[in-house]
Amino acid sequence: MLSLDALDTPVATVDLDAVERNIARMQGYCDEHGLAFRPHIKTHKLPAIAHMQVEAGAVGITCQKLGEAEVMESAGMRDILMTYPLVGSAKAERLAALAAEVVVAVAADSERVARDISSAAAAAGVEVGFLVECDTGFHRTGVQSPADAAALAELVESLPGLRFDGLMTYPTAPESSAWLGRARTEVEARGMRVSRVSAGGTPSAFTNHLGGVITEVRAGTYVYGDRSCIASDSVPLEDCALRVRATVVSRPSSDRAILDSGSKTLTSDPVAWTGETGHGLVVEYPEAHIYALSEEHGHVDVGGCSPGPDVGEVVTVVPNHACGCTNLHDEVVVHRAGRVVATWPVAARGKIR
Amino acid sequence: MLSLDALDTPVATVDLDAVERNIARMQGYCDEHGLAFRPHIKTHKLPAIAHMQVEAGAVGITCQKLGEAEVMESAGMRDILMTYPLVGSAKAERLAALAAEVVVAVAADSERVARDISSAAAAAGVEVGFLVECDTGFHRTGVQSPADAAALAELVESLPGLRFDGLMTYPTAPESSAWLGRARTEVEARGMRVSRVSAGGTPSAFTNHLGGVITEVRAGTYVYGDRSCIASDSVPLEDCALRVRATVVSRPSSDRAILDSGSKTLTSDPVAWTGETGHGLVVEYPEAHIYALSEEHGHVDVGGCSPGPDVGEVVTVVPNHACGCTNLHDEVVVHRAGRVVATWPVAARGKIR
Repeated sequence: MLSLDALDTPVATVDLDAVERNIARMQGYCDEHGLAFRPHIKTHKLPAIAHMQVEAGAVGITCQKLGEAEVMESAGMRDILMTYPLVGSAKAERLAALAAEVVVAVAADSERVARDISSAAAAAGVEVGFLVECDTGFHRTGVQSPADAAALAELVESLPGLRFDGLMTYPTAPESSAWLGRARTEVEARGMRVSRVSAGGTPSAFTNHLGGVITEVRAGTYVYGDRSCIASDSVPLEDCALRVRATVVSRPSSDRAILDSGSKTLTSDPVAWTGETGHGLVVEYPEAHIYALSEEHGHVDVGGCSPGPDVGEVVTVVPNHACGCTNLHDEVVVHRAGRVVATWPVAARGKIR
Repeated sequence: MLSLDALDTPVATVDLDAVERNIARMQGYCDEHGLAFRPHIKTHKLPAIAHMQVEAGAVGITCQKLGEAEVMESAGMRDILMTYPLVGSAKAERLAALAAEVVVAVAADSERVARDISSAAAAAGVEVGFLVECDTGFHRTGVQSPADAAALAELVESLPGLRFDGLMTYPTAPESSAWLGRARTEVEARGMRVSRVSAGGTPSAFTNHLGGVITEVRAGTYVYGDRSCIASDSVPLEDCALRVRATVVSRPSSDRAILDSGSKTLTSDPVAWTGETGHGLVVEYPEAHIYALSEEHGHVDVGGCSPGPDVGEVVTVVPNHACGCTNLHDEVVVHRAGRVVATWPVAARGKIR
């Protein structure tokens, strides 16, 4: 069998044993607490891992862009939640076409999106589930108050082609459950039923049972882990499945090593949620610090290593952000304990529409 | 003819008129000063624009990764400089195969790379040009002193399959010419000829004639421009050819708009060289500030706009870093004055090896 050591670098690798551990842990948590689990495929972008997640018990998948959903539908996924406001008739019509084939729901925060999707769904003779996106503290998308959530729910309920399903938020914060509970009460007071309350994000995933409001967990990064997950204590280093093998291509000075992996390979995404700096964790040299990235160069301070790697040495890097990293790679090499299993095209990579 | 307005978003667009102006300006500068010009294709990654550059007078192209060079060779490029240390026999053999077809030179800073390439080139019966990379102040790759440059040149001269061509640096700083002049003197004192002194980088491109040492200019970003080029006064906004058309998908509050373009579309690369924050310039709303990116969300402070764009409105964003941006896009839509000319696959995108 081919070993990872035989591969030219840089190369993105995925440890399938670690993926299985991560899937089992998250699904186990959801099963224990009676929560539905709906993994976000933006992390791996791979049909094979989506199938592993569904086989382990996930109720379906989460996507953001229609191009991702179309790849996953073509690969056999049958229940897709789009946690993204799909604006305009072109996207609404693609969504309606998808809804004719598989179970589809969307989350959004505006009348505009509700009306766009309603028109296309009604014209296509399909029904699309609709979750009202709630801003429970992150201040990205989402309606701003429980009253606004109820008002949008009422509009959705009145529109053809839409079925009001419930509420959605990202990420789950300590205050999210109370917010969502108030919104549920407001919606129910207007005579509607909230059948799903969906909450997302890996760092907070294991808190979703607290509060008793959330019914569905979404998480993506948990499946690979990354430096951000290590920083937030959500995935330990040994379960970080996605790693980049990189070669030292220059040692211009005693304290500096240059890797063949820069922002085009590792992503220039920062470590999320915490203030940590740097651009990845060098597993073999924990004292090393990737202090800067050019597109093809990782600039590493190896002053704390004695003597640090030579030109030609291969090291393993856990990237800051798994999702941003996989979006850069046309393929990943999957392995078990360093023995290559297969090379998988990252089928849903680069799907920005 | 199709208008850009008819395209679904997000979409990366390239203004061919602006590209032509940028090519003419840089080639004109080099011609005026008797400098060879060798554009770096990492910005556009497109055979069509590489041909436009060569037709305008470029002596050849610059690539970093072999995968880029292979795409460009297959598209008809005949003179390629690899400004990247190619380590290991796998890459050396690919380089030697390329050198059997087209004129190839490499830049590197170590004995290891020189010996790897020498072995492969000698075995293949080809000759590869070699430029010694010099660290003239950026502190990335490059030998650390003129004496080290001369020592590596002497080794290169002694190795089969290699031809010592000269010196290379990136980027050009005010002190680079003096450094390179000292290195040239040291090399010549050992009886070797320095036939090329190649210097790179868009912000400093128009200073390369100063000092009288540099003979070849490399630049990449000049061809598209970006927010970094605006910040460094190297390309004006009106010549920024690469722009992302983005739709407002949420207006959760009076001061916040969310675009359908996040780090997967705009790149999370920062503005280079200056301390500017933010993630792109919204052309139609110069007061708007893209203060954060999620993968698919551009978080925009529109508090300074009155009232700012509605959900559904399309805006145009000049990204922070053109090269990082094009690496995210499978295709770009090329246009003249907003009329679509063609959709070009970004052929050398994602070539990390």
